[in-house]
Amino acid sequence: MNEDRGTAPGFAEIEAAARRLAGVAEETPLLRSAALDELAGAEVLLKPEMLQRTGSFKFRGAYNRIAQLSEAERSAGVVAFSSGNHAQGVAAAAALLDTPATIVMPADAPAIKIENTRGYGAEVLCYDRYRQEREAVAAEIVAERGATLVRPYDDRDIIAGQGTCGLEIARQAEHQGGAVDLLLVCCGGGGLVSGIALAFGELSPATEIFAVEPAGFDDTARSLAAGERLGNDPEARSFCDALLAARPGAVTFEINRQRLAGGLVVSDAEVAQAMAFAFRVLKLVVEPGGAVALAALLSGKARARGKRVGVVLSGGNVDPETFCAAIGR
Amino acid sequence: MNEDRGTAPGFAEIEAAARRLAGVAEETPLLRSAALDELAGAEVLLKPEMLQRTGSFKFRGAYNRIAQLSEAERSAGVVAFSSGNHAQGVAAAAALLDTPATIVMPADAPAIKIENTRGYGAEVLCYDRYRQEREAVAAEIVAERGATLVRPYDDRDIIAGQGTCGLEIARQAEHQGGAVDLLLVCCGGGGLVSGIALAFGELSPATEIFAVEPAGFDDTARSLAAGERLGNDPEARSFCDALLAARPGAVTFEINRQRLAGGLVVSDAEVAQAMAFAFRVLKLVVEPGGAVALAALLSGKARARGKRVGVVLSGGNVDPETFCAAIGR
Repeated sequence: MNEDRGTAPGFAEIEAAARRLAGVAEETPLLRSAALDELAGAEVLLKPEMLQRTGSFKFRGAYNRIAQLSEAERSAGVVAFSSGNHAQGVAAAAALLDTPATIVMPADAPAIKIENTRGYGAEVLCYDRYRQEREAVAAEIVAERGATLVRPYDDRDIIAGQGTCGLEIARQAEHQGGAVDLLLVCCGGGGLVSGIALAFGELSPATEIFAVEPAGFDDTARSLAAGERLGNDPEARSFCDALLAARPGAVTFEINRQRLAGGLVVSDAEVAQAMAFAFRVLKLVVEPGGAVALAALLSGKARARGKRVGVVLSGGNVDPETFCAAIGR
Repeated sequence: MNEDRGTAPGFAEIEAAARRLAGVAEETPLLRSAALDELAGAEVLLKPEMLQRTGSFKFRGAYNRIAQLSEAERSAGVVAFSSGNHAQGVAAAAALLDTPATIVMPADAPAIKIENTRGYGAEVLCYDRYRQEREAVAAEIVAERGATLVRPYDDRDIIAGQGTCGLEIARQAEHQGGAVDLLLVCCGGGGLVSGIALAFGELSPATEIFAVEPAGFDDTARSLAAGERLGNDPEARSFCDALLAARPGAVTFEINRQRLAGGLVVSDAEVAQAMAFAFRVLKLVVEPGGAVALAALLSGKARARGKRVGVVLSGGNVDPETFCAAIGR
């Protein structure tokens, strides 16, 4: 890794990312729901990133990274490993920037994510999530083809790109009546929450930000409590396929350690209930990993009552089978 | 019917309705999807009214009507007949305005719509859609209780309220790069499309507006072609439960006859495909009746290629069973 890539971006880099993304990424709205406010006893502002290009926030970081490659680097192509949303973000960004993309995906990723990634024109290589190291598979392609690895979170340009979501939330909330007291953001490797935390550090420093993780993959919550990076039990399983990182990123954890108020953990059952609520009341399609922050609110694990609360719904790429099982409960 | 209620509202009444609804109804955003643009070969602007309070546009008209009742009228209560979305709109608006509400609903309405209507605090009376006249059931309650009937579409305050959706589309489209060439709007009794057409008549008169209906319930399309109000075959069936009006409204048809470019008709299968597309690509929950305009675009029945096209997604109140059957295709 380029030494420079492995440090936190400054606020100016997040603003530069926003300029790069203007007219390419969507500025997703900040939505309100009277029914949700009543249930939560709070003023809730929802950031629906499933409405983002490719169906998740991941496009922001991927485009910001690939747009900064040299022409020579772009023609050699990019490689990424991802359970699906980063894959789609990289594939779509690469296509827009005329860059060949190879994506290393777990064979058990949701079919919709694999199909979409191919649909954007990327080559998809599948690996066994529980038997092969995706980093090793990707490293081989980097070595063979001279391609550039686009990491999913531990990269300053990726973090700056995801930070544009935070810029938007802070500015939209201000425009809609004032800063949020509390902000709930899902966390896998930590790219989204760390980028948002950097943007809020400048624009809304009093907001308390929590990383929300699925049970069994609460590495960031435990690492924040311990003050050092801890991994998850390799036997752990969750249907939040977007959030199954083995441990916090080095760069992202260094940011999160300094800026987050803490971590919250929700069960798969709570996540399914949140997906069903989003279907029934919000009318939004949220994937399991995209619903953890809402689950933290609805389950009462986030202390939201009486507050103005931002909730990031990070993606909506979910197979009909998984979705219907969740909403049918 | 009060004679005055049975005429078209002026543009100033739509603006007055917008002021009345400010801070009560949502200003739903106008969304873009790169994937949809590519598929349709058009610039598509989506108006997602499933994100409106109560999950459909119907809240706009209901609130605008009930807010203008006198205090004495409000304390005697309101009555409405509806397959579900108008029911929920009236129930929620009445609750906000401290007005008792009785809703006459078909016994086979989606369970989610009946539950939600009760959830807003209204009394629900069920009738047999194919054996009883809902107007007669409602008229009895009006006579017994001195309650005010809140008609679903043939009422100038209702039409003015739905017209606020058109104000927003016209202004948001202008703000996002210019007027739409073509606008596709679902049509049951015609309240939404007529209200929107009145708003566009003032703000965007060059836009061609089409009413979109499900096959078997294409009374407005046939009536527009014939120049007079025609009814549907009473044996006709469609899963677009929100759009099963027997014939065009008198007030709404008079507006639509003067202002619409024509009517388009889509099959239930095309509607289910549009719902599945909205799930898979747009990440929005659209009910059958809410998806007909999108179905007209995706099926190619609307000539949209190369144009800037507005598509109204009018609601998202659908049972999990119906939704999952549609997206599982």
